[in-house]
Amino acid sequence: MNEVKPVRRRSGEGGKHGISEARKNDARTQSQYQPYKDAEWGFVNHWYPALFSEELKEEEVEGITICGIPIVLRRVDGKVYALKDQCIHRGVRLSSKPMCLTKNTISCWYHGFTFNLDDGDLSTIVGNPDDKLIGTTGITSYPVEEVGGMIFVFVREDDYPLEDVPPLSEDLPIRFPESSEEFPHPLWPASPSLLDDNAVCLGMHRTGEANWRIACENGFDNAHILVHKDNSIIHAKDWVLPLGIRPASDDCITTMEEEDKPKGLMQWLFTDRWEPILENKKVDLKVEGLNSRFYRTSVVLPGVLMVENWPEEHVVQLEWYVPITDDTYEYWEVLVKVCNTEEERKAFQYRFDVFYKPLCLEGFNDCDLYAREAMQDFYADGTGWDDEQLVDTDVSPITWRKVASRHNRGIAKPGRGVDGSVKASSIRMRRLAEGKKLGYFVEKIEE
Amino acid sequence: MNEVKPVRRRSGEGGKHGISEARKNDARTQSQYQPYKDAEWGFVNHWYPALFSEELKEEEVEGITICGIPIVLRRVDGKVYALKDQCIHRGVRLSSKPMCLTKNTISCWYHGFTFNLDDGDLSTIVGNPDDKLIGTTGITSYPVEEVGGMIFVFVREDDYPLEDVPPLSEDLPIRFPESSEEFPHPLWPASPSLLDDNAVCLGMHRTGEANWRIACENGFDNAHILVHKDNSIIHAKDWVLPLGIRPASDDCITTMEEEDKPKGLMQWLFTDRWEPILENKKVDLKVEGLNSRFYRTSVVLPGVLMVENWPEEHVVQLEWYVPITDDTYEYWEVLVKVCNTEEERKAFQYRFDVFYKPLCLEGFNDCDLYAREAMQDFYADGTGWDDEQLVDTDVSPITWRKVASRHNRGIAKPGRGVDGSVKASSIRMRRLAEGKKLGYFVEKIEE
Amino acid sequence: MNEVKPVRRRSGEGGKHGISEARKNDARTQSQYQPYKDAEWGFVNHWYPALFSEELKEEEVEGITICGIPIVLRRVDGKVYALKDQCIHRGVRLSSKPMCLTKNTISCWYHGFTFNLDDGDLSTIVGNPDDKLIGTTGITSYPVEEVGGMIFVFVREDDYPLEDVPPLSEDLPIRFPESSEEFPHPLWPASPSLLDDNAVCLGMHRTGEANWRIACENGFDNAHILVHKDNSIIHAKDWVLPLGIRPASDDCITTMEEEDKPKGLMQWLFTDRWEPILENKKVDLKVEGLNSRFYRTSVVLPGVLMVENWPEEHVVQLEWYVPITDDTYEYWEVLVKVCNTEEERKAFQYRFDVFYKPLCLEGFNDCDLYAREAMQDFYADGTGWDDEQLVDTDVSPITWRKVASRHNRGIAKPGRGVDGSVKASSIRMRRLAEGKKLGYFVEKIEE
Repeated sequence: MNEVKPVRRRSGEGGKHGISEARKNDARTQSQYQPYKDAEWGFVNHWYPALFSEELKEEEVEGITICGIPIVLRRVDGKVYALKDQCIHRGVRLSSKPMCLTKNTISCWYHGFTFNLDDGDLSTIVGNPDDKLIGTTGITSYPVEEVGGMIFVFVREDDYPLEDVPPLSEDLPIRFPESSEEFPHPLWPASPSLLDDNAVCLGMHRTGEANWRIACENGFDNAHILVHKDNSIIHAKDWVLPLGIRPASDDCITTMEEEDKPKGLMQWLFTDRWEPILENKKVDLKVEGLNSRFYRTSVVLPGVLMVENWPEEHVVQLEWYVPITDDTYEYWEVLVKVCNTEEERKAFQYRFDVFYKPLCLEGFNDCDLYAREAMQDFYADGTGWDDEQLVDTDVSPITWRKVASRHNRGIAKPGRGVDGSVKASSIRMRRLAEGKKLGYFVEKIEE
Repeated sequence: MNEVKPVRRRSGEGGKHGISEARKNDARTQSQYQPYKDAEWGFVNHWYPALFSEELKEEEVEGITICGIPIVLRRVDGKVYALKDQCIHRGVRLSSKPMCLTKNTISCWYHGFTFNLDDGDLSTIVGNPDDKLIGTTGITSYPVEEVGGMIFVFVREDDYPLEDVPPLSEDLPIRFPESSEEFPHPLWPASPSLLDDNAVCLGMHRTGEANWRIACENGFDNAHILVHKDNSIIHAKDWVLPLGIRPASDDCITTMEEEDKPKGLMQWLFTDRWEPILENKKVDLKVEGLNSRFYRTSVVLPGVLMVENWPEEHVVQLEWYVPITDDTYEYWEVLVKVCNTEEERKAFQYRFDVFYKPLCLEGFNDCDLYAREAMQDFYADGTGWDDEQLVDTDVSPITWRKVASRHNRGIAKPGRGVDGSVKASSIRMRRLAEGKKLGYFVEKIEE
Repeated sequence: MNEVKPVRRRSGEGGKHGISEARKNDARTQSQYQPYKDAEWGFVNHWYPALFSEELKEEEVEGITICGIPIVLRRVDGKVYALKDQCIHRGVRLSSKPMCLTKNTISCWYHGFTFNLDDGDLSTIVGNPDDKLIGTTGITSYPVEEVGGMIFVFVREDDYPLEDVPPLSEDLPIRFPESSEEFPHPLWPASPSLLDDNAVCLGMHRTGEANWRIACENGFDNAHILVHKDNSIIHAKDWVLPLGIRPASDDCITTMEEEDKPKGLMQWLFTDRWEPILENKKVDLKVEGLNSRFYRTSVVLPGVLMVENWPEEHVVQLEWYVPITDDTYEYWEVLVKVCNTEEERKAFQYRFDVFYKPLCLEGFNDCDLYAREAMQDFYADGTGWDDEQLVDTDVSPITWRKVASRHNRGIAKPGRGVDGSVKASSIRMRRLAEGKKLGYFVEKIEE
């Protein structure tokens, strides 16, 4: 006989505060972005920024992690090469103790397995030059493009054909003035592109603790103005922000889905398709003397934000949220300006150092960093995507999720052989005890 | 052909040191407390202490975690409100950056979702006041009671009906003298209750690293005297402890299971139903001049210890082991005394500061803290409940487990959206690298 | 209608860089060492070094973890006893707060459960001497041998019969000159054994973050010379190393599989069965004036390396890679020399302090420590064993894996009740925040 009896209790009728049917992302909507929900480790077979050019000098080697894939970069005679940073033999990362015996190879520091920089083929083994494995195998190579002071890597699956690699421009924001007719911008001049002649990119990147999707959605979210209301830049410029901005029309967003072009969405901000909210009686708030800065946000795969006319005319802010692991991302903030003379370049650099960087890239965007982190616990186990209750201002992330689901080139598999792929590993634990958090760069072995 | 052959080996006949059949908690007994074994994250739909009154001043907001549920508290016009600390929109904790625009609401700092303090209804969205989600959903509200300088919250499941919430007194220890007939105490005066007029509660709370059940069972365990033998309070008072106390009668414990009353157990300590052990020849120990302090321990759901006549006459020690996650608990130690004058209140506070706190709540009880922690590795994966070998002195925890299994109001589901619900998250990892352990309070965002 | 359509993509034909069929460890080979692949937590029912003799003085108690099993050692009247370090009652580790009331027992500090040192029987409970559990149960005892200044423990499963325990010598390297005929060594004198009369063992042990198998395979790996090329010892001695050493004959390795003898393998280094590689044209390297030190490596179960004639004549280096958890191991480095006089002993100690320890055990072997760690991420989730691509120089680990699979005496179950058996436990987390990594020794409770 078992003494335990169930406790009687009245039913709570499901609770009055369950998930509301009035939310924007009902089951039907969610089914349209399942691939996005699956992309915990990112989308692969896309171009991602890896390093600023100045972070990889001639002959230098650097190891990073993107979408859980270990990548090693080396610059030789000015050209940058990228390979999978994992020896085929015993799996160590080549970049943790770089050994380059010739100009066109990188060797594993452990047993001397030597790979061609250009195609990743195993070309020899230092102490075992006649082994029959040589020539039969190798590591994946990644296409590299370097423009405007940034190194981009096409992060592909091992079996993604090189001949299918699209041009970098397909994974970058649309350009102006060539898109000015399709996406007019009467309130500001045509935005520069990092592909423009004499484009200069100034910026920074740092590691954030959140899933890359949460980070990305924050970037073009029109409804989070509140987070920025206390930022110094707002007050220094005497801007007066609305309480919010809500979609006033069904065509408030246009998706970009043409073949061979960037895939994403453009928001018709500062048109009558979006309405600023100036009053909320319930909380007794009223905005007077509205004085917003004009800007426009768009986002394209694999998660590239463009903020036109920001922070100033003739400058554009680009952002990437590069997946490192499933809960860390490398946050890139880059300002682009065309500088046709050395003088212009110097002036841009000066303004970057004294204004843009401290007040915008830090200051203003620091708030986004903690906002993303604040969401992470809710989404970390995957259930957040089902439980969130979105509203009409969330047309932006919902549209993005659908477009990204339709046009991504592949969903990354969980990372392997990189720090953070096995949670709470003893190595990770020891590093934490030493005060070192998980990061984007490979730690080099010190002897 | 597979070369691997099994190694021959004689059978070890099961090992002479398996689990003994002589143990008290055989399979039949264990089956009587399965719900308790399942309650890794605690029992819900119970009253728990949340904060001392002085920890939440007028207009202040504080976030805590109980049973894996995020809870935010705010005090307005003296009254304390408690809501689920998780925005329905993107899941951030409201308390991490409190934003209160009106007296009767709390707004999410991220997108301005605004909830009524009293019922949790979504009453508006700051920058989106006409959204159709408003009025259809909200967050769970938790009943609050404030007595004797302590704030109690009824931690309910989202669908637990408010009309079923029992009075706080059902989740507090029984009271005297009204229980003096049922549970006589000839050796000490009637114990005070925090519900008494002019009851003053002085105490502390801190986070312990162990499951709450392990912590709780330590509180009323009569057999762990050894741990306390070197405590200063014992020697300062010239107490001479027995080696142990063993049950001398079948009725050494009485369960409390009457409807509408606290559910738990009372131990008949310092009666002939329990026998002090004064000698153990095997280890050559003999106690002479026994001089114990009289006290009596009882425990009621959801895990509230009462130690009557401790540390002195007219004072009672209460303890709670409030589940935070499955392996952390908030340890509450509270001394209650009725102080009818300001002078008495000051004297109690003085004695608390110079004697009770350093020698009893710290000193003496610090040993319990490490004892609970020492058990955690054994119980952490759940198998400890099956492998432990209990003896007759363990009648106390066994009885408690059965009573708790019969009368708890619900078993908490694993926590969601709180620090520690996803183990080894990157945010947790970063905080560890910064030297911050997982805790009870939400860390506020610093700008 | 679901808008999401799959992205068209050409097939990558499996990727040109998949796992090569030219690798040495194909599926058939791998099937011959499945037990080894399963031995994540080590092989049990083997002799392991636990402590140096000087680490356990008379009456001292120390707790350690081997193969996930908690073990407590105590020395009484010079003799060392070893028991399972886990009270049968509530699972705490006895060693965390040692309480020894008699010479032949150890008592649990929590509830006084008292166990015989010799057989682990529960002989009494301090405060409950008549409980019927007494005499019916107990904790596992482990056979102990102490030789040459080292304490060895036979780490057995609870049900492994004591009468089946083999002599320590079966789990130690083979001895010379008795093996000199079978394994001739014309280039160096017979190596000493720690079982020799007047053998002196000097060494050190420390915790490494990697699986024990990865650590062990590094020890006798002939192909990792590159890692050591910059070590001071190499340059101080003017040694000139080859680029590599490759097997030149099918009988380059002899397995040792005779009954009642150590099981393992001997490598015929510095014979014509192994060929030094002096040139690699692909990477334009050529060695001139080869001047290697003669040495020979062998390995026996449960993972004991012997390096004969190293670092000098008449000295032998032994190494163990004792599993602590699945991703930590205790790395033992021991030099053995026969010292027949006190003068010889002093000279050995002096040379150890000023030469062997800084240049060999540290210096040289420090490189092995980071090499093992560098492999860990790749092997941590178990897939590394399938994905690694081994070459002909890997005949050594492949042969070892097969021999170990055939002759181990048991595969350890995942650890229980020890630090690190539950990953990311709150206690572990707190310790990390305090800057303490997971280790081999039990941390004693401080009051």
